[in-house]
Amino acid sequence: MILLIPGPVTTRAEVRAAMARDFAPWNDEFRVISRRIRHRVREIAGGDEAVHTALPLQGCGHFGTEAALRSTLPVGGRVLVPLTGTYAERMVRLAREAGRVPVTLAVDQNRPLPPEEVAAALAADPEISHVGLVYSETSTGVIHDAVAIGAAVRAAGRRMVLDAVSAFGALPLNMSEQTEIDAAIFTTNKCLEGLPGMAFVVVRNDRLLAPGEAGSWSFDLADILTLSRRDGGGGFRFTPAAQTVAAFDAALDFYDQEGGQKARLARYQENARIVWQGMARIGLRPCLEAADQGPIVVNIHAPPDPAWSLPGFVDGLMARGFTISNFYNTEAPSFRVGCIGHVTPQDMQRFVDAVDAVVDALGVKIRAGN
Amino acid sequence: MILLIPGPVTTRAEVRAAMARDFAPWNDEFRVISRRIRHRVREIAGGDEAVHTALPLQGCGHFGTEAALRSTLPVGGRVLVPLTGTYAERMVRLAREAGRVPVTLAVDQNRPLPPEEVAAALAADPEISHVGLVYSETSTGVIHDAVAIGAAVRAAGRRMVLDAVSAFGALPLNMSEQTEIDAAIFTTNKCLEGLPGMAFVVVRNDRLLAPGEAGSWSFDLADILTLSRRDGGGGFRFTPAAQTVAAFDAALDFYDQEGGQKARLARYQENARIVWQGMARIGLRPCLEAADQGPIVVNIHAPPDPAWSLPGFVDGLMARGFTISNFYNTEAPSFRVGCIGHVTPQDMQRFVDAVDAVVDALGVKIRAGN
Repeated sequence: MILLIPGPVTTRAEVRAAMARDFAPWNDEFRVISRRIRHRVREIAGGDEAVHTALPLQGCGHFGTEAALRSTLPVGGRVLVPLTGTYAERMVRLAREAGRVPVTLAVDQNRPLPPEEVAAALAADPEISHVGLVYSETSTGVIHDAVAIGAAVRAAGRRMVLDAVSAFGALPLNMSEQTEIDAAIFTTNKCLEGLPGMAFVVVRNDRLLAPGEAGSWSFDLADILTLSRRDGGGGFRFTPAAQTVAAFDAALDFYDQEGGQKARLARYQENARIVWQGMARIGLRPCLEAADQGPIVVNIHAPPDPAWSLPGFVDGLMARGFTISNFYNTEAPSFRVGCIGHVTPQDMQRFVDAVDAVVDALGVKIRAGN
Repeated sequence: MILLIPGPVTTRAEVRAAMARDFAPWNDEFRVISRRIRHRVREIAGGDEAVHTALPLQGCGHFGTEAALRSTLPVGGRVLVPLTGTYAERMVRLAREAGRVPVTLAVDQNRPLPPEEVAAALAADPEISHVGLVYSETSTGVIHDAVAIGAAVRAAGRRMVLDAVSAFGALPLNMSEQTEIDAAIFTTNKCLEGLPGMAFVVVRNDRLLAPGEAGSWSFDLADILTLSRRDGGGGFRFTPAAQTVAAFDAALDFYDQEGGQKARLARYQENARIVWQGMARIGLRPCLEAADQGPIVVNIHAPPDPAWSLPGFVDGLMARGFTISNFYNTEAPSFRVGCIGHVTPQDMQRFVDAVDAVVDALGVKIRAGN
């Protein structure tokens, strides 16, 4: 079964095999694994050992985002969130419920966000200290140019919290150059092709508020940094998903073997190209223009035919070995296809053929509207 | 390698084998697993389907405790926390940093907390709405009588948040009778013998604050309850540690096969008895009186001999196939031994023999002080 949901992603059997043991997370052996992982992901973030630290957090990406907002913005602090899609809306809610003040910016969700729009919003509100950006919007498939938007943020003397959850490891990131980034959030189970259960936040040490100011001990990244400085980065404050951590280390080995960020991005781009072009070829309509289509997720308009049924479609694909999301994520009905994980262009070609067959089997005659 | 750290615990190979697959957490197949688990743990909690709900939370037990405090106590609400040990101190910190007001009660940490002390503290401060109790204090090995203390809380017209992390599934709990319990917190990786990565909170639905009042979207149990009512309890708001969830379901099968709570408690009691008596027999001094010794963790005083070395002791045990914690958890140096997990009285007997041999090999002459 190939997962294109997208995330948790399809993983290698060798990565899952690393979960087959019991681990004592506070043992010297495990500390070595955990230090190595944190070093590796800081490097992937383009972080500098003297400036940045990769901090682990139990749970999921949303927890990492809440922790990053709480640990860089004081209560009442204002964060500009461009409304690029579902994940931006979630960042707004995480910030608001944590007592921070999200300032929303309506944008065209179907194309990359122009940096000038961010610059204008920042110019209009000097009280905004941070921009909360979703690098790869899983709900639309659009990649927002974190480098160009970050430059606008930097030019305005502001900072950035970057939700890199479905981007990290595939899309470029260089926190040493992108000095506006206070925190970049990601998880074990997206482009780095591990299993779910842990989040990480790479932070600029000097940008965190003092310990205790997060308003949540669980989500206080400054407290995690304090522990990290004391123990050299091998420890966890609370019990981690130890098997997930071990599998992540194995996944990073395969990441290196493949050739790192550039190679992974190239494979995902090819995966996405095959899906986008394949769908167009079989008469289905991708939601985005080819030029705006990112390499992580491809959204396809549901056929405007009464015979169309998302559950029927999902079941039909499952019978052919592919799992996609069984819910709509966009206002206009569309199904989304993840192009990330341990999946190849050959898999994606087979997927296009499967879609063609299942749409036929459903009795869909009209595959695309005007 | 047998883990006696205690927690994450030693698990069965069959339980870990359930992690060997990729899962799509929002699929119908996975919803069945997740609904089944939530039904099973509500039953173990003695919960009533019409009154209680088992809510999943990504991460670790501390996250569950913070979520329970935030979701039952308003900002500024007062919670009495008897200082039974490290985990009680952690509950104090979680409450305080979340803007709730912990009222501490100093107690004798080496014996079960007398309910009258809680009753007196509640009588002295009518503004206290809740008691935060650690059922099984992992740092000392003492079990606190949640039923008797709960009756005192109920009699005083107050409520309880119960940290049942290292108790749940082994020690008795009947939330239908113990109506004072608003929330009981536990995780996948203690007495239910699963792997780490997920917490659960069994709540009384009618006791949760309104959604949005937790001051954290991530930790808002009322929001998780809202989703649960909408989708019948199969879903997660955010990506769960899916492999941990699947393994937990397998672990619950073995729990049922063994005979449930009573059988599990009986095995752990026998494990703890063998450790306590075995240590005394080989001349080491357990920290607690036999009558006060709980079945989850046994603490043993470090030998007062210059040849003693905790790292050397831990390494020696590891060479013999046993892992214990490599740090001190009590003021007076002591090593702690978990009696929970997939370990048998035979394992514990072998462990006692290993301790005897390693203490000798270290050159320790004086095994116990006066």
